[in-house]
Amino acid sequence: MTQPIKRIAISTGGGDAPGLNAVIRAVTLAAQRRGWEVFGIREGFNGILLPDRYPVNGVFPITKDMVRGISHLGGTILGTTNHGNPLRFVVTDADGTRREIDRSDDIIDHLRAMNIDALVCVGGDGTLTIANVLHQKGLSKGLRVVGVPKTIDNDLDKTYTTFGFDTAVAFATDCIDRLHSTAESHQRVMVVEVMGRYAGWIALHAGMASTAHAILIPEIPYDLDKIAAKIRARQQAGRNYSIVVAAEGALPKGGQRYLEEKAKLGEVERLGGIGEQLAHQLQEITGKEARAVVLGHLLRGGSPTSFDRLAAMRFGAAAVRALDEGHSGIMVALAFPNVNYVRLEEVAGRMKGVDLDGDTIQTARDIGICLGD
Amino acid sequence: MTQPIKRIAISTGGGDAPGLNAVIRAVTLAAQRRGWEVFGIREGFNGILLPDRYPVNGVFPITKDMVRGISHLGGTILGTTNHGNPLRFVVTDADGTRREIDRSDDIIDHLRAMNIDALVCVGGDGTLTIANVLHQKGLSKGLRVVGVPKTIDNDLDKTYTTFGFDTAVAFATDCIDRLHSTAESHQRVMVVEVMGRYAGWIALHAGMASTAHAILIPEIPYDLDKIAAKIRARQQAGRNYSIVVAAEGALPKGGQRYLEEKAKLGEVERLGGIGEQLAHQLQEITGKEARAVVLGHLLRGGSPTSFDRLAAMRFGAAAVRALDEGHSGIMVALAFPNVNYVRLEEVAGRMKGVDLDGDTIQTARDIGICLGD
Amino acid sequence: MTQPIKRIAISTGGGDAPGLNAVIRAVTLAAQRRGWEVFGIREGFNGILLPDRYPVNGVFPITKDMVRGISHLGGTILGTTNHGNPLRFVVTDADGTRREIDRSDDIIDHLRAMNIDALVCVGGDGTLTIANVLHQKGLSKGLRVVGVPKTIDNDLDKTYTTFGFDTAVAFATDCIDRLHSTAESHQRVMVVEVMGRYAGWIALHAGMASTAHAILIPEIPYDLDKIAAKIRARQQAGRNYSIVVAAEGALPKGGQRYLEEKAKLGEVERLGGIGEQLAHQLQEITGKEARAVVLGHLLRGGSPTSFDRLAAMRFGAAAVRALDEGHSGIMVALAFPNVNYVRLEEVAGRMKGVDLDGDTIQTARDIGICLGD
Amino acid sequence: MTQPIKRIAISTGGGDAPGLNAVIRAVTLAAQRRGWEVFGIREGFNGILLPDRYPVNGVFPITKDMVRGISHLGGTILGTTNHGNPLRFVVTDADGTRREIDRSDDIIDHLRAMNIDALVCVGGDGTLTIANVLHQKGLSKGLRVVGVPKTIDNDLDKTYTTFGFDTAVAFATDCIDRLHSTAESHQRVMVVEVMGRYAGWIALHAGMASTAHAILIPEIPYDLDKIAAKIRARQQAGRNYSIVVAAEGALPKGGQRYLEEKAKLGEVERLGGIGEQLAHQLQEITGKEARAVVLGHLLRGGSPTSFDRLAAMRFGAAAVRALDEGHSGIMVALAFPNVNYVRLEEVAGRMKGVDLDGDTIQTARDIGICLGD
Repeated sequence: MTQPIKRIAISTGGGDAPGLNAVIRAVTLAAQRRGWEVFGIREGFNGILLPDRYPVNGVFPITKDMVRGISHLGGTILGTTNHGNPLRFVVTDADGTRREIDRSDDIIDHLRAMNIDALVCVGGDGTLTIANVLHQKGLSKGLRVVGVPKTIDNDLDKTYTTFGFDTAVAFATDCIDRLHSTAESHQRVMVVEVMGRYAGWIALHAGMASTAHAILIPEIPYDLDKIAAKIRARQQAGRNYSIVVAAEGALPKGGQRYLEEKAKLGEVERLGGIGEQLAHQLQEITGKEARAVVLGHLLRGGSPTSFDRLAAMRFGAAAVRALDEGHSGIMVALAFPNVNYVRLEEVAGRMKGVDLDGDTIQTARDIGICLGD
Repeated sequence: MTQPIKRIAISTGGGDAPGLNAVIRAVTLAAQRRGWEVFGIREGFNGILLPDRYPVNGVFPITKDMVRGISHLGGTILGTTNHGNPLRFVVTDADGTRREIDRSDDIIDHLRAMNIDALVCVGGDGTLTIANVLHQKGLSKGLRVVGVPKTIDNDLDKTYTTFGFDTAVAFATDCIDRLHSTAESHQRVMVVEVMGRYAGWIALHAGMASTAHAILIPEIPYDLDKIAAKIRARQQAGRNYSIVVAAEGALPKGGQRYLEEKAKLGEVERLGGIGEQLAHQLQEITGKEARAVVLGHLLRGGSPTSFDRLAAMRFGAAAVRALDEGHSGIMVALAFPNVNYVRLEEVAGRMKGVDLDGDTIQTARDIGICLGD
Repeated sequence: MTQPIKRIAISTGGGDAPGLNAVIRAVTLAAQRRGWEVFGIREGFNGILLPDRYPVNGVFPITKDMVRGISHLGGTILGTTNHGNPLRFVVTDADGTRREIDRSDDIIDHLRAMNIDALVCVGGDGTLTIANVLHQKGLSKGLRVVGVPKTIDNDLDKTYTTFGFDTAVAFATDCIDRLHSTAESHQRVMVVEVMGRYAGWIALHAGMASTAHAILIPEIPYDLDKIAAKIRARQQAGRNYSIVVAAEGALPKGGQRYLEEKAKLGEVERLGGIGEQLAHQLQEITGKEARAVVLGHLLRGGSPTSFDRLAAMRFGAAAVRALDEGHSGIMVALAFPNVNYVRLEEVAGRMKGVDLDGDTIQTARDIGICLGD
Repeated sequence: MTQPIKRIAISTGGGDAPGLNAVIRAVTLAAQRRGWEVFGIREGFNGILLPDRYPVNGVFPITKDMVRGISHLGGTILGTTNHGNPLRFVVTDADGTRREIDRSDDIIDHLRAMNIDALVCVGGDGTLTIANVLHQKGLSKGLRVVGVPKTIDNDLDKTYTTFGFDTAVAFATDCIDRLHSTAESHQRVMVVEVMGRYAGWIALHAGMASTAHAILIPEIPYDLDKIAAKIRARQQAGRNYSIVVAAEGALPKGGQRYLEEKAKLGEVERLGGIGEQLAHQLQEITGKEARAVVLGHLLRGGSPTSFDRLAAMRFGAAAVRALDEGHSGIMVALAFPNVNYVRLEEVAGRMKGVDLDGDTIQTARDIGICLGD
C-alpha cells in the first residue's frame, strides 16, 4: 500500500514552452487543496545538482502567492535548462579528465532527505526518460514520480497533443498570414522555416491554417523540382507569389547523403538553415526572387492560447490526482475527451511523427498543397 | 452501386461561425480537384425556397477565385440564416391563414433539376436534421447528402469538437483576461455572460483559461450563496475582486420554478440576461460593487483560430471524400487523431453537455474554482 | 530655490486604464536612478485617508522588484478608486449627519511627515483638479506636485492624447471587425456602444478604423431618420447589413428634452443604454433585425498597445524630470514630437471634444460614413 | 485657375506597408463622392511602363466593389515594386549596351491620353521624388500630382509619422515580448534585429515598449563593451538574461571602417546581418549563450493597427481634398492634431532620424536602457 503524500516537488526541464506556468499553478493549487506542501526545483534538476548556482535554495517552497496570475504568462517561474542530463552528469577529475556519471540517486536522496514523497517532472522526451529512471530507482526509497509531457513540436508519443504546440502553431500562422500580402505585393517566393527537427507537425498545421502553397516536413523527403513546378503553375495561373513552409528538419530526397557529402567538404556550416538554403535554391531554379524567414525562437514564448492553458491546467491537476491515487512511473496524457495515464516506459525514446495516412495529410493534398513529393 | 459525382452544392445554415469560409474553400478545392463542379446555395436554403430575394441566382457556381483568401475570414460567402426551417416552411393562404409545409422535396427537385448529385450541409442541430431528411428522401432521386457539424457552443454530439468553438473560447478568454485588471483595480465583482444556452462548454473552457473564480453552466444548477461565499473567502484572503463567468443558460437551483414565478408576475422581460441578474443579486448579497459584461455576438465572428481553420478544412475535404466514396446520410466528425463519419440519424436531436465526471470539471474543482454547487 | 528631492510618492486615481503600470515603473526607475526613494499610495488617496482598510501600510516603499515586468500588464499595482474625492470627503457626525470636508491638508501633512518631497498624481480630470489643490496648498509646506494625464476617452485638454486611448480604440476596432461578418451573414443592424460620455473619440476612431457605416458622438446630435436612410441606402445597394457605432453619450437632436420627459415618467431606468435604445428604434423604423453590443468595461483593461506603453513610459519619466527641474503644479503632456509641460490650472475642468472642423471628421464624411446629421 | 478634376489615378510604390489598401479605399470613396472616376496603376508605374506584363490593363478603373472590406487587409490591391525607377529606366540597346533613360514623360503622356487629370502617388522617399518630377513636368500638361507618405521605418521628414510604422512597432513588440520568457528560462542573450537601415525608430519604440535592456540604432554608434557591461550588471543583479534590440543599420563606433576592412578580406558576406554578428560577439565577450532573431519581412505585412488604418484613411481623403482644392506638388502629412500639406520638394531626399535630444531617448536613458554609448 502506498503512503499518503505530504510533500511534493515539481521540476520543469528542456526548452521553454507556453503553458509551463499554468502546469505549475495547477499542480500547486491541486496539491495544496489536498493539504500537501509543494516545492519547486530550480532549472530542471540544477537546483539539486548545482546548488552553488543559487544564492538561496535550489529547492524552495512554492506559495499560493507565487502562482497568482501566472497561467497566462509564458516561461516558467522555476527556470529550465536544456543543457546537461543528470544521468550523464559531466565531472572533471583532478587530472582534468572529463567523465559522465549518473546522479539520479543524488536527486532521489536529496528529495527524500527533505521528506518529499513525490515528484512531478514536466518535460519532453529527455526529461521523461529521466523521470522513468527516478521512478524505477526512487519508488523503493519512497519517491513516486509522475511525468507531464511538454513538447512544442508535438512529437511525443502516447498523447494526442500537449500544451505549447497550439500556441506555436497559432503564432506561426499569424506570421505566415502576414507574409502573404508582402509576398504578393512583391511577387516573391517566401520560405518560412519553423521548428520541427524530427516531426513536421508545426509546419503542417501552421502551413495549412495559413494556406501556404508548399509544406515540407521531415516525414516526406522533398523533390526540389516538385516545389518549383508548383511555383511555376501558380505563376501561370496569375498568382505571382508563393509561400513555402519548411520544418527545420525537412530533407531533400536522398538528402542525408547530400548533407554527408557537403560535410566532407567542410561546407555544412556555411549552408545556413533549411530556410535560407531553399530560398537560394528556389530562386536559382525558378528565377523568382525568394526570401527566407526563420521563426525559430519566436515559437517558444508568448502567452499560451486558451487551448494550451486548459491543457496545461488539466495536466497539472491530473498529475496530482495520479499521485493521490498512488500512481508512479506514469505520464498524464490527452486522450480526448479526457486525460488518461500511460506508462513512462512506453513513452520514453519514442517519437510521434505526422501520420502520412491520416486525414490531415489527405486534406493538404485534396486542397492542392504541394508536399514536395 | 453509386453514380460518379459531377456536380455538388453547398449550403451554410444557422448562426454565423468562424471557419465556415474555410469549409467552403476546402469543399470547393477538393471537389474541383476531382473534376466536379461546385454550386453555392444562398442563405441556408433560401436561395432555392425564396428565389425572388436574389437579383441573380439563388444557386450559383463557385469559382476558384471566389474562394481565394477566404479561409481566415469570418462569416460565410454564401450567407446564412437562422430564421425559417424548410421542413416547416410558413405559407400564408389567400384567406390569411398561416400554415407550415414541408418543402424538402422542393429542395431536392431543384437541385436534381440542375443535375446536382450531392449536397454538403454545414450547420448545427437544426441543419443536420434537415440534412438527414434530404438524405432520406433524396437518395432515391439521385441526391447524396453529407453533413458538416457547426456549433460555437460545442454542443453537438458524436464529434469531439468542431470549428468555431476554439475561436469563441479564445476571444472570450481574451475578454475575461482584460476584465481582471479592471475588476482588481476597482475591487469589483465582474459577471461575464457568454454563449451557451444548453451546454456550458464556452463558459467552462474560457472561464478556466482566464482563471475565473466562479463558473456557472447549465449542467450544474447554482446556489447563489455558494458563489457569494467564494467571493467573501477571496475578500478575506485579501483578494478584493472576483470574476464570475456564466453561460447564458445557467440556472439557479430550482431555477426553472423561479423563472416561472417571475413570468407570472410579468417581470421576466425586465430581468435582463443571466449576467445582469447575477450582478444585481451578488451586489445585494455581498455588498460589493458588481457589473455585468455580455459577450454575446462578439463570440460568433472574427478570424478563426489556426485550430478552427484546420478543423474546418479537414471537415470540408472529408465531406468531399465521403461523397466520393459513395456515402450519404453521414456527418463528418472529429475523433482524434482523425476525422471519421457518423450517421446523421445518430446525431440529430442529441445534445452534448459538459461531462460532469470528466477530468476538466475535476480540474476546475481541484484548482479551487467555484462551480456554484 | 527648490530643495533637492529625496523621496517621492505616486498615486493612481479614477478608472482603470492600460498603461498605469508602465507609468509607475517609469517613475520608479527614473527616480531611483536619481537616488530618490519612491513610495506608492494605495487606491487613489485611500492609503492615506482610510488607513484602516490596509493591513500593512497605505503608503509603502516601491522596490525595483515590484515594478519588474509590469509595463505590459493592465491595471495598477497601487490600486485605484473612482469613489470619493479628498476635497469632498464624506464624514458622518455622531448624530448621523453626513458632511463633506476637504482633506487635502491631511494628504499633504501625511506625506510631509514621511519626508516625502514630491507627489506624482496619475489620473483624469478629477484627479488633476485634486493635484492642483495639493500643489497650491502643498508647495509652501515643501511638497511639489506633478500630474500625469490618464483618460481612456481622450477627453483631457492640452495633451494631444494619453495612454489608454489607443488600447481602447484598438480593442473596440477588433470587436467591431468581428461583428461585420456576423452582421452580414445574418443581414442585421448591429449597434455597438462604446465608452465616451462627453466626447466621441473612441467611437469616431474605432468606428472609422473598423469601417462602421454610421458613427454617433456626443458632439453631433443625431437624427434617427438620417441613420435609417443610410441603412436603407445600403440595402438598396445590395448591402444587407449595417454597423452603427455609438458613444454612450450620443444624444438625438433635441435629445436632452426627450430624456427629461422620459425621466418625468419614471421610465429612464428601463431605457437601457444608448445601444439598446438605438437597436430597438432602428429595428422599428427600418424593419431590419437589430442587435446591440455594449463594449463598456472591456475597453478599460488588457495589455496596453505598444503606443500606449511608450506614451506611459515617456509620461512617467517626464514627471520625474519635471520634479528634478523644480517644477510643481504642472501636467506632462504630449505635444508631438515631444512631451512638454502645461499648468495644471489650465487643464482642470476643461474637456477636449472631437474637433468638428478637423480633418478626421472631414475624412469620415468623405468616405461616406453617416454621422447622424 | 485650375481645371475641375474628372479622373484621377493612384499608384503604390516601394515596399509593402500595412495601410496601403486603406489609402486606396479612402482615395476611391472620397473621389467617387466628388463624381470623379478613379484608376489604379499596377505595381508602381509598371502598369504604364511595362504594359506587356499585364494580361488586361496596366491602368484599370477601380470600382466601389474592389475596395470593399480591404481597409483591414495588408498589402495593396494595386501591387507594388521596389525594383526599377522610372527616372532611371534601364533599356538594352540592340548592341547589348544597357542605358538608363528618364521615362517620366511617358507616364504623364499615358495618363493624359486617358484624360486623367491628377495622380496620387503613395510611397517612400523614392516614390515621392518621382512624384515631384511628375508634378514639375506634368502640371503644364494638365496633370496634378499629390504624394502620400509611406514608410514603415518612419524615416520620412515633414510628417510626424505615417501608416505602417505603428503596425511594425506593435508586431515587433509582440515578438520581443515572446522572447522574454524564453530568454529568461534559458538564461540567454537574445539579439533581435528589426528593420531600420538609416533610422532607429522601430528599434527604439519597439525596444522600449517591450522593455528591452539594450537598444542599438544607426543614430548612435555603439560600443560593444557598453552592451556587455549592461549584460554583466544584470547578471550580478540576478537577472540571468538580456534582450538586445538592434536596427539593421546599427553600427559599432568606427564601424564603417570595420566593415571596410572586413570587405577587403572578402569576409563580409559571411558576416550575416547585425543580429547574427552581435549575438556572436556578445557570446564571445560575455560567455553567455546568445541567439539572434531577425524579424525582417514579418514587419511589412499583416493587418494594420487601428492607428495605421485611421492615418491611412485620413491621408487618402486628404490627398483627394488637396487635389480638389487645386494643389499639386504637395505631400499630405500628419501634424497633430490635423493633416496638413508640405511641398514635395521639401521632403524628397531628406531623412528623419531619431531626435537624440528628444524626450523619448531621454526616457530610455532614465529607465536604464543601454543605448550602446
